[in-house]
Amino acid sequence: VTDDLKRVTFVGGGRGQWIVESMEALVGRGLRRVERVAVVEGPFEYGPRQGAWRLRGVTGHERYVTRAEQEELRRRSSGLGRTEATRTVLIPIRKTSAWWELAQDERRAIFEEQSHHIQLGLRSLPAVARRLYHSRELGEPFDFLTWFEFAPAAGEAFNELLRELRRTTEWTFVEREVEIRLRRAVPP
Amino acid sequence: VTDDLKRVTFVGGGRGQWIVESMEALVGRGLRRVERVAVVEGPFEYGPRQGAWRLRGVTGHERYVTRAEQEELRRRSSGLGRTEATRTVLIPIRKTSAWWELAQDERRAIFEEQSHHIQLGLRSLPAVARRLYHSRELGEPFDFLTWFEFAPAAGEAFNELLRELRRTTEWTFVEREVEIRLRRAVPP
Repeated sequence: VTDDLKRVTFVGGGRGQWIVESMEALVGRGLRRVERVAVVEGPFEYGPRQGAWRLRGVTGHERYVTRAEQEELRRRSSGLGRTEATRTVLIPIRKTSAWWELAQDERRAIFEEQSHHIQLGLRSLPAVARRLYHSRELGEPFDFLTWFEFAPAAGEAFNELLRELRRTTEWTFVEREVEIRLRRAVPP
Repeated sequence: VTDDLKRVTFVGGGRGQWIVESMEALVGRGLRRVERVAVVEGPFEYGPRQGAWRLRGVTGHERYVTRAEQEELRRRSSGLGRTEATRTVLIPIRKTSAWWELAQDERRAIFEEQSHHIQLGLRSLPAVARRLYHSRELGEPFDFLTWFEFAPAAGEAFNELLRELRRTTEWTFVEREVEIRLRRAVPP
């Protein structure tokens, strides 16, 4: 019905276009180790039931960025699906209830004025493309699923982005985080 | 999994604790006229399949209020389920894509600095209790379902709140709105 939102189910198992290179639980409980991840777009009602685990998310409107930041992000971002972006990383995150109980102005201040989340992300553009999916209100085990795409040459820039984000005040509110590194399977 | 969120399904049909007094489509398409509304709490997976229509929503964190506003709202609000609150109103709303494409600072400015949504709501407290459910990311036909509860004597204060909200700039972004007035069925 709300056709402008994109729904996705990440299915961890033995099938799919993405070969798992590593899976690491950074905070809290991990996910069962799998060989492959399939990315299934579309309504959840018709979503897959197979796999060792399934993570569902939906895109949404911007929660924290201002108009000026939004314009800069759009100007500098690259789209998903670039041929050279053969490396992807899926990072499911869950934040503490303390985070969700904060008011909007408090969350914004931690997100950007203290943690510079947007500014750090801008530094990795356009090399690292990303899309954020929301999961919390779907009753999922994680609050967010972030999907990153980049060429192998941008791997170090991506690693630096992760290191910097994980040092922020915002990250003290993360109570579960898993990092799943993937590479595109060569078509047969 | 995210146990702090409340999930509800409003089922319009011939059954339920709430007798429909009126149903009105204010903007856009209405909903089929029914006799009763049942309020079913809990996970959607096990939700009801009956009824002429079903509207699902989930509570969430505050999207626009500051810490100071949040504290004032909490201090002055009454809880749901008061014995004297025999009148309830369910208002499903859908906003335009133009609204959702705005950045956070633009939506906040329209919501409060221009439309005084929070200040208008405060005036009707504690007489009118309310709870906001989010539906947009669930793939529902509406973006929000707001549930109001009040005693018959507060009916006029509630009507005045609706009149004022519908005159705001924020409401120019509403593309569908239905008003469903209910009264509690006397237990047999």
